[in-house]
Amino acid sequence: MKTPIDVAVTGAAGQISYQLLFRLAAGNFLGNDQPVILHLLEIPSAMDALKGIIMELNDCASPLLHRIEITDDPMVAFKNVDFAFLIGAKPRGPGMERRDLLADNANIFAHQGKALNAVARRDVKILVTGNPANTNALIAMHNAPDLKPENFSAMSRLDHNRGLAQLAEKCGVLPLDVKNMIIWGNHSTSQYPDLHHTKVKGQDALSLVDQRWFEQQFIPTVQDRGTAIIKARGQSSAGSAAHAALDQMRNWVQGTEAGDWVSMGVRSDGSYGIKKGLVYSFPVTIENGKVSIVQGLTINKFSAERMKASENELKEEREAVKHLLG
Amino acid sequence: MKTPIDVAVTGAAGQISYQLLFRLAAGNFLGNDQPVILHLLEIPSAMDALKGIIMELNDCASPLLHRIEITDDPMVAFKNVDFAFLIGAKPRGPGMERRDLLADNANIFAHQGKALNAVARRDVKILVTGNPANTNALIAMHNAPDLKPENFSAMSRLDHNRGLAQLAEKCGVLPLDVKNMIIWGNHSTSQYPDLHHTKVKGQDALSLVDQRWFEQQFIPTVQDRGTAIIKARGQSSAGSAAHAALDQMRNWVQGTEAGDWVSMGVRSDGSYGIKKGLVYSFPVTIENGKVSIVQGLTINKFSAERMKASENELKEEREAVKHLLG
Repeated sequence: MKTPIDVAVTGAAGQISYQLLFRLAAGNFLGNDQPVILHLLEIPSAMDALKGIIMELNDCASPLLHRIEITDDPMVAFKNVDFAFLIGAKPRGPGMERRDLLADNANIFAHQGKALNAVARRDVKILVTGNPANTNALIAMHNAPDLKPENFSAMSRLDHNRGLAQLAEKCGVLPLDVKNMIIWGNHSTSQYPDLHHTKVKGQDALSLVDQRWFEQQFIPTVQDRGTAIIKARGQSSAGSAAHAALDQMRNWVQGTEAGDWVSMGVRSDGSYGIKKGLVYSFPVTIENGKVSIVQGLTINKFSAERMKASENELKEEREAVKHLLG
Repeated sequence: MKTPIDVAVTGAAGQISYQLLFRLAAGNFLGNDQPVILHLLEIPSAMDALKGIIMELNDCASPLLHRIEITDDPMVAFKNVDFAFLIGAKPRGPGMERRDLLADNANIFAHQGKALNAVARRDVKILVTGNPANTNALIAMHNAPDLKPENFSAMSRLDHNRGLAQLAEKCGVLPLDVKNMIIWGNHSTSQYPDLHHTKVKGQDALSLVDQRWFEQQFIPTVQDRGTAIIKARGQSSAGSAAHAALDQMRNWVQGTEAGDWVSMGVRSDGSYGIKKGLVYSFPVTIENGKVSIVQGLTINKFSAERMKASENELKEEREAVKHLLG
C-alpha cells in the first residue's frame, strides 16, 4: 500500500466537512489504494461536535484512514500537509455588514496563511472553499511568502458543475456530454458563467439554446444557485460543495481530460486583461499538477463586460482587506 | 460505459440518505464506471426537502448519475430496481411505546414488501437499515412471497465496523489488521459482538486483550455506540451508517475476502440453533452474490447465552407483528 498522504480540513465540524470527511476516508479523493492521515482544525467551541464526528469516522473502520489528528491551532493542523481543504469561515450573521464579514474572515485566513507558510509541505495544494473564497485565498497567499502563489486556489468547481448540469438538462443530455464550460471571476453572484466556448456533444452550445435563455435563465440560475438551494433545503449546499471540492482537488492532482478544461480560482497573471495578482476564476488545463490558464479564447463585448464586473468586485474586496496583504 | 443499474433509496430526504446519495452519484457503490439511476422514495411531507437535495445531486454534474426519479409510491419507486436501500423508518417519538413503534414500522415495511414483490427485479438485493431493521426485514420478506428470502438482508455492518474499530484502537493496529469479527443477533443493544474467533494480525484477539475488557468495555461499547454518537453529536449516526450500508451492499455484490467474513442480518436456516426464519445477524461469506452462513464455529457457554438473549428479543418482536406475517 502507498505511503499515506496528509490532508488538512478546516471547519471540520461543519456541514460541508461532514460530507467531505467520510468521502476522504472512503478513498474518494485519490483512490482506494491511497491511505490518508486527516488533520482536522476547528475552533474550540466546536471541538465537542468534532469529537462526535471522529467517533463516526472511526466507526467506518476504513482501511484507508490511518490516523486522525484534531487541533484548534493551524500551526499543528498544517504540519507537513500535502493538501489543505480550507472550508471553515465565519458565516454572515444577522445585521452583519459585508465589510465586517470580509474583515473577520480576512483575519482567519491571514493567520492560516502564516501557518501554512511555516509548516506545510512546500508542494502543498490548498483549496479555499470558505467564503469569500477568492479573497480569502488572496489573503492566505499573501501571508505565505515562502510558498508559491501556485500552491493556492479558490473553489469555482461548484459553479462550474452547476453550469454543466443546467446546460445538460436544457439540452436533454448528460453532464458528461458538455465540455469547455467556463466560470469567470469571483465565487459570488458577480461570477460570469460563459457558454461561448462550450460544446454539447461536439456542437456549439449557443447554437443549441437561444440567447435569451442564456442571458435571462442560465446566467442568473448559476449565479444565484446557492440562494436557491438554501431556499429549497433550509440549509446551504453541503453535499454538492464537498463533491465539487473533491472534483477540483482531484483534477489538480490527476490533470484535466484532453480537449476539456475546468474552472478554477487562481492568481491572475494578467490573462484576458484581468488585473494581475487577483484570485480570479479562469478556464484552466492541468498536467502533472501544473495549472495553466487557457489562452487565446475570443472574448466578445458581452463577455468582456461581465468579466470586468466580477474583476471590479474582487478589486473592491481586495481594497477592503489591503491592510492584511503586506 | 456499462448499462446503468437501478437503485432505490427510501427515506431519501433523511440524514443517512443525504450522506448516501452523493456517494452513489460518485461511484462509491460499484465503481467509477458504473452509472446509476436513482429511484427515491419519500413521504409527501418530505417531498419539498427532497427536491432541494435533488438540486444538489444534479449540481454534482456526475458522469455516473444518469437519472433521478422521485415518488411517494413504493410501486413506482421499486419498479425494476436492482438494489434497494430501505433507510426510511418512523423514528420513535416522545412518549411512544416500543410496541407502537414496531407496529407503525411494520405497516410501512409490509407495504414496501408487497411493492418489491410486485415490481422489483427478481434478483433485487434489499438492505434494510431503518429500525427495527431485522424485524422490518422479516416483515418485508413475508410480504414478498414471489421473491426469495435471500433477496433480503438487515444491516449489521455498522455494528461490525464499530467492533473492528474498537478492537483495532485497543490493540494499536489499523482496522484492516482485524479479521473475523462477528456480530450475532439483532441490530439493537441485545446484539452480541463476539471476539472468540477474531484475529488481530493473525493472533487470537482474546489472547491480546483481557476478558474483563472484552466483557465490560468492548461488548457494551459496541452495543451502545448509537446512543453514544447521539450524545456526542446531538444527532444519530448518518455518515457512518451510510458508509456501512455501502460496505454491506458492496460485499454482497463483490464478495468477501478470502479468509475473512462479514456480519449480515439474514434469514436463519437454523444454524447455531437460532430459530429458523428469524432475520438474525450471522458471520457470512459471499461469493458471486450468494451469501453463506459460516458453519462449524465453536460456541462456548458465554457466547451461547448472549446469542440466545438476542434471539429471544427477535422472537418477541416477531410476536408483536405476527398479524403482518401472513
